[in-house]
Amino acid sequence: MKLALNKQFKLISRPIGLPTRDDFEYSETPIPLLNEGELLVKSEYISLDPAMRGWMNEGKSYIPPVRLGDVMRAGGVGRVLESKNGKFNKGDFVHGLLGVQSHSVSDGKGMTKIDPNWAPLPLYLSLFGLTGMTAYFGLLSIGEPKQGDTVLVSGAAGATGSVVGQIAKIKGCHVVGIAGGQKKCDYIINKLGFDGAIDYTSGNVASALKTNCPDGIDVFYDNVGGDILDLVLTRINLNARVVICGAISQYNNTTPIKGPANYLSLLVNRAKMQGFIVFDFASQYKEAAVQMGQWMAEGKLKSKEHIVEGIETFPETLLMLFSGENFGKLMIKV
Amino acid sequence: MKLALNKQFKLISRPIGLPTRDDFEYSETPIPLLNEGELLVKSEYISLDPAMRGWMNEGKSYIPPVRLGDVMRAGGVGRVLESKNGKFNKGDFVHGLLGVQSHSVSDGKGMTKIDPNWAPLPLYLSLFGLTGMTAYFGLLSIGEPKQGDTVLVSGAAGATGSVVGQIAKIKGCHVVGIAGGQKKCDYIINKLGFDGAIDYTSGNVASALKTNCPDGIDVFYDNVGGDILDLVLTRINLNARVVICGAISQYNNTTPIKGPANYLSLLVNRAKMQGFIVFDFASQYKEAAVQMGQWMAEGKLKSKEHIVEGIETFPETLLMLFSGENFGKLMIKV
Repeated sequence: MKLALNKQFKLISRPIGLPTRDDFEYSETPIPLLNEGELLVKSEYISLDPAMRGWMNEGKSYIPPVRLGDVMRAGGVGRVLESKNGKFNKGDFVHGLLGVQSHSVSDGKGMTKIDPNWAPLPLYLSLFGLTGMTAYFGLLSIGEPKQGDTVLVSGAAGATGSVVGQIAKIKGCHVVGIAGGQKKCDYIINKLGFDGAIDYTSGNVASALKTNCPDGIDVFYDNVGGDILDLVLTRINLNARVVICGAISQYNNTTPIKGPANYLSLLVNRAKMQGFIVFDFASQYKEAAVQMGQWMAEGKLKSKEHIVEGIETFPETLLMLFSGENFGKLMIKV
Repeated sequence: MKLALNKQFKLISRPIGLPTRDDFEYSETPIPLLNEGELLVKSEYISLDPAMRGWMNEGKSYIPPVRLGDVMRAGGVGRVLESKNGKFNKGDFVHGLLGVQSHSVSDGKGMTKIDPNWAPLPLYLSLFGLTGMTAYFGLLSIGEPKQGDTVLVSGAAGATGSVVGQIAKIKGCHVVGIAGGQKKCDYIINKLGFDGAIDYTSGNVASALKTNCPDGIDVFYDNVGGDILDLVLTRINLNARVVICGAISQYNNTTPIKGPANYLSLLVNRAKMQGFIVFDFASQYKEAAVQMGQWMAEGKLKSKEHIVEGIETFPETLLMLFSGENFGKLMIKV
């Protein structure tokens, strides 16, 4: 008989630039026995997110960095194999920070029960997970789109951007996405109903912005940062809202981050640029999920997942986020 | 008998870097005769403001640039010498965009009557003018200081910054100013009641920020931009508000503007950076003036004017704003 083993990736060095396999240690170790109050979860899907790159860095941020030698932090969904915790039963499905590992033991804090009959498991990492919540609250609470507004989204074919654009359409906005490559641009127009798409890998983004956003930009939901943010700042309208969700173009920089040189456009346009952290909206996750589920049922909101098989592929699969190779919410099927 | 002449400075070229006398043409011309509906105003004081530098540049902004060949735009207070406009009488005092000239003819649009018995004329350009209004509304409406907040102001001894800091003190905040030179630092602490002062011309601003703002920064009212903005972004608190009032360090750049490389601090701190234009608050100027007048009467709010004599000095006097030589609200007595 074979012992069940926990496959895990630990962070063992802080990456400089793009993370490599050498920054992690892969191991297979016996699964610990449970203490009173604990539960054992088998991961089914592990979420790969740009934010993970930030967690690998030293320094103060909205949550502490992953310590060297610890299992790499990641969200996931899994099944309870065993429970000595009164709040969870064997066979329950849960969502939480399971880490990049096949099995995890925890005291249940931060775990939420989910219902695989209400939605398939991967949707709890995409639309109904932090990705969808980030789109929903960033757009609606920070971007505050009004009917008729022009809403521009960068990383528009990505897990968050694609949801942002679709919700903006539902709210009656003129929606334009910036994405890499013709295939992604076709997708957001033909499948997701965006009004315009700008392929940043080909041609002149500045003139494409003019053509696609003839009335200027009221809301910019930025996942990318860098030169694109700077360009967009030259085209914002009075009282525009720039939602800073991320800056994936800058996460692996080995040179200093490029700040938006055109930030004084905020002044002349009485505009704001605001960051947010989705955790602050935790008390409203449920109503957002119900609302997005409703839109999905009505055919107004689509979710696309990009699922890679095998936890062993983690270091290489993660890189797809930064090369833009993924198409949809990236996750690993364990 | 001598003809009364209008002394005026016209903008004749767009400055590169600091403006020079050669960018203006000085002339003395006869005063035009009035048409029906017009009034003739003799300027008493002309306001010199950092924003004037922006008005000299080509390109879209919150108001059109001054056209080459036109009298340089400037705010001012003056006396009505003659009126064929039913709304104004000879002897009235007015505030408006009188331009850099001794006499102006207008149709009265944008002119506001002022009462020299309620406040001395220069105060209508400082505390009760756009300078004071910019401080008042930028701090209270955009910065939203709460009792106990740490409020940091750059250009703290300047016309706007000094008012910002005093109002923040009235609101019960811990107030720290950044200014150039010991004299200005002493002034904001000893005369204006700031809790701390940082002299950016001497020593390490980063460590001075730590010492003076031990609990981080809740509101940063920025008049300066550049490296100081970047440094401050590393010390902001959760939900901080960065008020972009100006960026005097960047107005005369001949190289591209330096964007705030640390802008992602807005993300991890759920903070906002917001610009504003004082004109948007025009409907509330009066109540602000009444409130500030009350504070002044109670000895809680001081106004300092730096008055230079002679309109002929305009090009050189203007430069004092950018060298930091002025001490208080800069204006010319015509």
